[in-house]
Amino acid sequence: MKAGIVGANGYSGIELIRLLTNHPSVEVEMLISHSTSGSDIQSLYPHLSGILERKLEDFDANELARRTDVVFFATPAGVSKDLLPECLERGLICIDLSGDFRLRDPEAYQSWYHRPPADHGLLQDAVYGLSEINRRQIAGASFIANPGCYPTAALLGLAPAIKDGAIDLNSIIIDGKSGVSGSGRKAAIGNIYSEVNESVKAYKIGAHQHTPEIEQAIEAMSGQSETITFTTHLIPMTRGLMCTIYATLAKGYSTREFIQKYEQFYEKSPFVRIRPLGTWPATKDVVGSNYCDIGLNADGRARRLTIVSVIDNVVKGAAGQAIQNLNIIKGWDEQEGLKLTPVYP
Amino acid sequence: MKAGIVGANGYSGIELIRLLTNHPSVEVEMLISHSTSGSDIQSLYPHLSGILERKLEDFDANELARRTDVVFFATPAGVSKDLLPECLERGLICIDLSGDFRLRDPEAYQSWYHRPPADHGLLQDAVYGLSEINRRQIAGASFIANPGCYPTAALLGLAPAIKDGAIDLNSIIIDGKSGVSGSGRKAAIGNIYSEVNESVKAYKIGAHQHTPEIEQAIEAMSGQSETITFTTHLIPMTRGLMCTIYATLAKGYSTREFIQKYEQFYEKSPFVRIRPLGTWPATKDVVGSNYCDIGLNADGRARRLTIVSVIDNVVKGAAGQAIQNLNIIKGWDEQEGLKLTPVYP
Amino acid sequence: MKAGIVGANGYSGIELIRLLTNHPSVEVEMLISHSTSGSDIQSLYPHLSGILERKLEDFDANELARRTDVVFFATPAGVSKDLLPECLERGLICIDLSGDFRLRDPEAYQSWYHRPPADHGLLQDAVYGLSEINRRQIAGASFIANPGCYPTAALLGLAPAIKDGAIDLNSIIIDGKSGVSGSGRKAAIGNIYSEVNESVKAYKIGAHQHTPEIEQAIEAMSGQSETITFTTHLIPMTRGLMCTIYATLAKGYSTREFIQKYEQFYEKSPFVRIRPLGTWPATKDVVGSNYCDIGLNADGRARRLTIVSVIDNVVKGAAGQAIQNLNIIKGWDEQEGLKLTPVYP
Amino acid sequence: MKAGIVGANGYSGIELIRLLTNHPSVEVEMLISHSTSGSDIQSLYPHLSGILERKLEDFDANELARRTDVVFFATPAGVSKDLLPECLERGLICIDLSGDFRLRDPEAYQSWYHRPPADHGLLQDAVYGLSEINRRQIAGASFIANPGCYPTAALLGLAPAIKDGAIDLNSIIIDGKSGVSGSGRKAAIGNIYSEVNESVKAYKIGAHQHTPEIEQAIEAMSGQSETITFTTHLIPMTRGLMCTIYATLAKGYSTREFIQKYEQFYEKSPFVRIRPLGTWPATKDVVGSNYCDIGLNADGRARRLTIVSVIDNVVKGAAGQAIQNLNIIKGWDEQEGLKLTPVYP
Repeated sequence: MKAGIVGANGYSGIELIRLLTNHPSVEVEMLISHSTSGSDIQSLYPHLSGILERKLEDFDANELARRTDVVFFATPAGVSKDLLPECLERGLICIDLSGDFRLRDPEAYQSWYHRPPADHGLLQDAVYGLSEINRRQIAGASFIANPGCYPTAALLGLAPAIKDGAIDLNSIIIDGKSGVSGSGRKAAIGNIYSEVNESVKAYKIGAHQHTPEIEQAIEAMSGQSETITFTTHLIPMTRGLMCTIYATLAKGYSTREFIQKYEQFYEKSPFVRIRPLGTWPATKDVVGSNYCDIGLNADGRARRLTIVSVIDNVVKGAAGQAIQNLNIIKGWDEQEGLKLTPVYP
Repeated sequence: MKAGIVGANGYSGIELIRLLTNHPSVEVEMLISHSTSGSDIQSLYPHLSGILERKLEDFDANELARRTDVVFFATPAGVSKDLLPECLERGLICIDLSGDFRLRDPEAYQSWYHRPPADHGLLQDAVYGLSEINRRQIAGASFIANPGCYPTAALLGLAPAIKDGAIDLNSIIIDGKSGVSGSGRKAAIGNIYSEVNESVKAYKIGAHQHTPEIEQAIEAMSGQSETITFTTHLIPMTRGLMCTIYATLAKGYSTREFIQKYEQFYEKSPFVRIRPLGTWPATKDVVGSNYCDIGLNADGRARRLTIVSVIDNVVKGAAGQAIQNLNIIKGWDEQEGLKLTPVYP
Repeated sequence: MKAGIVGANGYSGIELIRLLTNHPSVEVEMLISHSTSGSDIQSLYPHLSGILERKLEDFDANELARRTDVVFFATPAGVSKDLLPECLERGLICIDLSGDFRLRDPEAYQSWYHRPPADHGLLQDAVYGLSEINRRQIAGASFIANPGCYPTAALLGLAPAIKDGAIDLNSIIIDGKSGVSGSGRKAAIGNIYSEVNESVKAYKIGAHQHTPEIEQAIEAMSGQSETITFTTHLIPMTRGLMCTIYATLAKGYSTREFIQKYEQFYEKSPFVRIRPLGTWPATKDVVGSNYCDIGLNADGRARRLTIVSVIDNVVKGAAGQAIQNLNIIKGWDEQEGLKLTPVYP
Repeated sequence: MKAGIVGANGYSGIELIRLLTNHPSVEVEMLISHSTSGSDIQSLYPHLSGILERKLEDFDANELARRTDVVFFATPAGVSKDLLPECLERGLICIDLSGDFRLRDPEAYQSWYHRPPADHGLLQDAVYGLSEINRRQIAGASFIANPGCYPTAALLGLAPAIKDGAIDLNSIIIDGKSGVSGSGRKAAIGNIYSEVNESVKAYKIGAHQHTPEIEQAIEAMSGQSETITFTTHLIPMTRGLMCTIYATLAKGYSTREFIQKYEQFYEKSPFVRIRPLGTWPATKDVVGSNYCDIGLNADGRARRLTIVSVIDNVVKGAAGQAIQNLNIIKGWDEQEGLKLTPVYP
């Protein structure tokens, strides 16, 4: 199977290259980039020398249809909205890593992304690609809205408790912490080393565009529409994302019981690992891999559940989950091309 | 005035040296260390060469009484409990940076610190040195229990809201994030660079010894005994500590109103700076200084207040606040020796 | 083929696990560790959960001979000297990642390592496993002394120039810069985050044990015995190693000519990549991979060649090259199990 | 005395603010910035809130002459060349932190900086402000070309050996390593966190504009014109700069003798500290301070001297040395406002 990557010169783009060159059934055929078309990918990213040496091309749906079977959109907000429909029409499998098709409600998109939304009908067609939760809908689909990095960690951390009814939905607080690669290869003062290093910074409080995405998914899981509190922090590290999640206990489970329920829930999900009692995941435990590691603590004293969920934002939070979704779509082994041992230390 | 520092070879100890060598009314006279006595401080810490070159000595209360007026205890848990009383008896001003005298309830100490507590009577004598809140009790005192780093950031962030009755006390959740210097100059696998770098790690969930300290101070401010949820995370940076605090709104203040109330509350507190609407502090904004910077967001949607409070854990969270307390005790300008511009970037 | 790893609980040990679980012809069968035998590897290293869950065992040569075909020694200095001979005698392929068998001269070992050397005869038997240079001797061998991390980067950077006679051998200066993982998972003050972070430190100047290893290899390549100057620096990063090498030009080649000669020299070496004119490698370009990237500058003004050579110290500088050597020994494709795209960013 | 800072919104600019607010005889009066004039400095740099809150103004030489006595130029290359003469003419003391007036030879400037040089006559007037070496010329001067960061560390490390004739001048190799703050607050891909972190990168090999500055100063000290080899590396840290310097021994001094000679040479230079035998400076030992720490090793085996010299690039490599020069100009204590203990850890 041949793949095209639109936005190949960004971090999610080159991570798709890293992972797909390791995939037995997919071959990278086209690298698309508006801003750097005509350049060689290995001159922009010398780490790819001798691995994938290819020119970046301009977007051309016909050319994509002629040469590829699946197209990944690793583009900034507002781009795939316009380009992806052309590929869909030509019968290509489309997997969108941006936020353009994640929210079913166009008004929500408008108000959180401050941009015009995609076509309303298309928004309803996109399957939300949270692999472990929506496997059935993903299988056989041809149009995936790949989840955001924060929503992936948050929702995998929350799903078993929500589906069990074990927590009060209106009490959910998500404290997110992300490495800097999450903001892409963008030359901005806020991204430069001397500003980010040796510092934790809170940002977009009450205004992060992943908020409605998480709320929509919680509603899909519970049938209940609730408002969450979601805060994001920039951490001086390149890769890695943690959500520390707080919720009031609705049932009196002990930590041990929660761990057991989570293990059962994810029994057939090889990429989710539940930590043993009294231990907690670090983002480093998953770097370079598609894992989501989860630790749990039910505090009887405060009647609260604390969930710690970690992923590599570039893998499970972007390129890895996109490929996992492709595997599910095609009925391949979900782990195909993704059996990656975390790079430790 | 002459000062002695017990535990001078730790990070709080050398920070006391850095700050006191800059203080117009205090002179460092004795450096005490059990484990490294006989060594020169500048051979352990070459950055002090030419600034303070002195032998580390063994603890001797008589010698301290003879040569000094104030003793700082920058010692690990369980040490000042035994040594500080000897200094108190000899009429020395004692400022304890460890947790030994912070909890009035000996049983709480025993159960959170897993060690035998200090003498019950002494625990009642110690003044809790949260400078901005307890100035009146500190003035003229001779025995200070200097607050922990997390409690300092958390309580300065909470105090105005609590005293105003603006939040539900039983809804308080504190998500703490600390740099690695907080765990001291200790050779432990968990502290080594390759393990900590490029990683966020949750630790001591539901079990951090600063929990009862924060609860006790909330009770002192509100008259109400409540249980909080407090989670701590290790961040790949050396200095800096952030508490992101969540609480349900009890009053319908807007963010703007909260900012105004906080500014009024801290009007005479030069070390607390409230951020303008829509901006958030980063730990880097206070590194090397005694500031506590606070940002606020009242989210009407979720009916929750989010408070972001940052300090340098080694300064306002330890050595700086200790000296601030000495200034208050002696009736000096509170900023004496502490007019430090943050080192940026 | 079954493999045993002695010293499996160190960083080179777990990197061997990461790489071998990805190797089509090798299976990890035994994990040996003196200090942690009886523990589960995944409790020491949770990133291995679900990937390789196995108990660490005590060293037992008979057991190794019964269950494995190849043994990797990822042990501290002075250990393989005693254990490896037992495995050799039992017909196992032995690949030693420590320095115990790298120096043919026992006295040099004694004087640079400050320990008793291995048996003189065995020292002559060991094949120095610098894969790209010694392929012929490695093929079919059963006893490999895997090179040190600095020597690997330095010698791959120097080899083409030395073999061409293009530089004065008595003018070689190597300025080495290494990430902290090079000093292992060792709880020492010098390794802790707060000491290493935000700092470059020179260490072991004129005394690094890799000095005689580099000199011995230069002599093997040139037939000339020369003294080099070799200085090492600790860099605040986990993985990555750079050698910046200076030598006086013996021939008047331009930079372009040097690049051409290096490309020819490494034509059949897929893991060595020569940078185009005017560009320089960063350690990040090779992290997680077995590559050695080299940049060159011949300065006519100063009549000096500057060579910049980078590797991932844990891969090409340890576990990766060890596996590359096994591939060569067995006549497999040299890249088997090592087609790893660097993890960028 | 009143000071103006041109380029106040860069890292050297705000470091001048940090240091001058601590200086007993100087007051910051005007902040000049072309790109951000009209903004408040504390909104660009919140760490200055409550310390120095002031509007950035446009450059106006008459206004500077009216309101200030000394002007610091912390501007990018090519700016002070045009603005500084206007201030000089109006009788202001001018201290230029950029490279515009460091090279006496306008052609050298043109060829290394790739820009038109300053007026030839003015280039001869500027006093090269390497404080420890040129005290006599600086005293009473009114026009200082403040040295570059690399030249400061390199030349302080070399000066005693050069003046003694102890090394061969044509053998000097300088391997420089700098933190990222050296490239300023500039939004460029090469500066962003995800690119710089966990990486060492060589840059501008054979082409760094500090090369002719170092050569010119060596010639001034020795009377001999020689070509050096100078290589620079970007290190994943914010502040700190190290030069590791190699030179062939011309005299047979031992390390101990070199240390003694260096100590004598810098006897009256409180900011230069020579390390004891067998110990080496780390950049962390000087962060936040005006120190230059130097370690030495004379290797009889290779007949080479290795010098390790470290500074904080923003202090001794820029703002600190500028203020030190002002102190010398005015005949004040050289340490006035600069008695800064390094911030450790």
